[in-house]
Amino acid sequence: MNTQNQTWKIINGGISAPRDFYAVGVKAGIKYKEKYDIALLKSKSPATAAGMFTRNLVKAHPLVLTEKHLMDGKAQAVIINSGNANACMGEIGDSAAWQMAEETAQQTDISPQDILVSSTGVIGQAMPMERVLPGIELAVREINHLEKLGDGQTKEEQAHNAALAIMTTDLVPKELAMELKCTGGTVKLGIMAKGSGMIHPNMGTMLCFITTDAKVEAGKLKELLQEATDESFNMITVDGDTSTNDMVVILANGASGVEPKGDDWKAFSKMVRGACCEMAKAIARDGEGASKFLEARVTGAKTLGDARKIARSVTSSSLVKSAFYGEDANWGRILAAAGYSGADFNPHKADIFLNGLQVAKNGQGLEFSEVEASVRLKEKDIVILISLQDGNTTATAWGCDLTHKYVDINADYRT
Amino acid sequence: MNTQNQTWKIINGGISAPRDFYAVGVKAGIKYKEKYDIALLKSKSPATAAGMFTRNLVKAHPLVLTEKHLMDGKAQAVIINSGNANACMGEIGDSAAWQMAEETAQQTDISPQDILVSSTGVIGQAMPMERVLPGIELAVREINHLEKLGDGQTKEEQAHNAALAIMTTDLVPKELAMELKCTGGTVKLGIMAKGSGMIHPNMGTMLCFITTDAKVEAGKLKELLQEATDESFNMITVDGDTSTNDMVVILANGASGVEPKGDDWKAFSKMVRGACCEMAKAIARDGEGASKFLEARVTGAKTLGDARKIARSVTSSSLVKSAFYGEDANWGRILAAAGYSGADFNPHKADIFLNGLQVAKNGQGLEFSEVEASVRLKEKDIVILISLQDGNTTATAWGCDLTHKYVDINADYRT
Repeated sequence: MNTQNQTWKIINGGISAPRDFYAVGVKAGIKYKEKYDIALLKSKSPATAAGMFTRNLVKAHPLVLTEKHLMDGKAQAVIINSGNANACMGEIGDSAAWQMAEETAQQTDISPQDILVSSTGVIGQAMPMERVLPGIELAVREINHLEKLGDGQTKEEQAHNAALAIMTTDLVPKELAMELKCTGGTVKLGIMAKGSGMIHPNMGTMLCFITTDAKVEAGKLKELLQEATDESFNMITVDGDTSTNDMVVILANGASGVEPKGDDWKAFSKMVRGACCEMAKAIARDGEGASKFLEARVTGAKTLGDARKIARSVTSSSLVKSAFYGEDANWGRILAAAGYSGADFNPHKADIFLNGLQVAKNGQGLEFSEVEASVRLKEKDIVILISLQDGNTTATAWGCDLTHKYVDINADYRT
Repeated sequence: MNTQNQTWKIINGGISAPRDFYAVGVKAGIKYKEKYDIALLKSKSPATAAGMFTRNLVKAHPLVLTEKHLMDGKAQAVIINSGNANACMGEIGDSAAWQMAEETAQQTDISPQDILVSSTGVIGQAMPMERVLPGIELAVREINHLEKLGDGQTKEEQAHNAALAIMTTDLVPKELAMELKCTGGTVKLGIMAKGSGMIHPNMGTMLCFITTDAKVEAGKLKELLQEATDESFNMITVDGDTSTNDMVVILANGASGVEPKGDDWKAFSKMVRGACCEMAKAIARDGEGASKFLEARVTGAKTLGDARKIARSVTSSSLVKSAFYGEDANWGRILAAAGYSGADFNPHKADIFLNGLQVAKNGQGLEFSEVEASVRLKEKDIVILISLQDGNTTATAWGCDLTHKYVDINADYRT
């Protein structure tokens, strides 16, 4: 999809750029010393809200609670920790997630049902509540302070701390803010995310939180989030594994007083989808051990489903991923990955281009200069274009290469 | 499945152990000098025959030809080469596959329609017919010589050469022969296979050829091969990629004069399935760069489909595979891989054992000795037992760990 825009613009302020949103990050000592590990995100007033959750049958405890709390399409705050996933812990885990919501509720004077809870980190270990609960208290104190200060540098810094607090093996924080001129005024959007790399000692998680001061009805918000997730987070893969904690949440507090309609709605939904795609790409780029960023663009597919299956299959293939690590113009692996994707297409019409260099035509290899290929594949960003000439649909997926470092990171946690 | 048997026994002779089968391997110079690269397998009389083929939409040229030649459920010889996959070559490729069948037919005086063709190796390069055709001629001369000599050491050595000639990146040849006492006499089975590791510069292939001197009607043979493939070759994974050339073929020439029925049929089909499972395990064990052999056993599943999905998802997970490379008792990754497999089960009832050591109970981690775990995971063979307590069905999948060597092999072909 086209993430270029005519109407929105990038602004400062991260997740709490939209009016009446506040976010802080604090160091509670869950992860390890001197690291941000609790983030609190809060709207002054109740917001409409929606979420998308992992399809893994094994669901972390906070995720189950958050799904329940979103059933009324409303929320006012999100409490997030890194360092412990609170997954596979039975009743202790349910109780820990609930306590996090309750503690946040008591401290903020919000109903526990309007608090969402999200965790990422180690699976199968008890949440250290003796550190989590004081951490929540601290976060609320900081956010109260922030509300008094109002907009300004401290608010921006705290938004950044929140983005840091949700990181695990991510190398860089991922945050962004945008604004869009609509009839009746400007609406803003804030977004922060963390990557899907794996963390000590079990697995990592893809988390994304989105705020907006637009006024959006809950059902419409849910639909938009589904679309945006399908074309962004569902199109990235680092290693094909789906976490127990994956979650994307959006809150719309209406503080701009603007309810985007007609063309404004189209532009607004494009902005939300664009923001999600930017986060998705940032996550793929920051994949564990990644040395290269892969973008697979499929054009000319019969259906959107076919285009997406092929794009995802190519960026998920261990063979394709290791070929690009070796800077090898291995079009046969790309065509084969398309072939077993489950998509319907005619391989005898497929053309393949690697960073603009055509390497296959009508499903057959072309003579190409190895020198030229080697120069193009030395780039850190690789665009794999698969032109099917079978229809009119396009899709893009993102991923990264498979490196020695990936094996290092994931083989040697506990020894 | 139980590959132990009460009734069959292992014998010598490999693929040409069954009566009236002959096999040779020759060095035609396709692969590189001094390596076996053409195998010819022939029955004295026409045999019933069946095949299973890759589900990849991109199918190699010899595979398309072989599927066509098997439509009548009959075949008499198989010509196989390594070193070139004859895939993605358009009309030149179709013509090369056809020439291989025709040359074999002329030299052996068998109808071209009864010749099957199979190739494995480089994708997207023209078959060097100037070496392939003389190679076929040589193979036929050798097989004629063998027929004159009859059973004996030379025949056994040549069967072994055939197993060598189908190898690509395989480290060891894979062959086996068995016999089974039935009412009316003894029937024999021969089998040879090559692994699914990837080869220069594109991809490798899983090939398996089975011979038997039992008398089996073609439809029944096809059904049996489907069952055997589903529980063996469809339950292994090295890196999740499906080749354009994957093929399993069985020929039954009836030379024993015995047509297994009733209990004999059950024992015979168990032998065929057992032989396929042994080959599947040998392939997984010889996976590219593998340092450990993984066996995932799922018990207590609701359906066979669920059990198989979970077992395969666990052995396919890059996270699980790299954890075992690091000898890390990472049960969370195993449970998560089960969770996203698409199978229906209750994660809260799942127990997990690693080489006999219980690490999770009812979906939650157990306290276990890291020292004990470390000793058990130092083994070269790892059995992952997932007990679901949800039903009565079991399934087993096989795989290998993900190692630095895998990345080496697949990253650095052409530079």
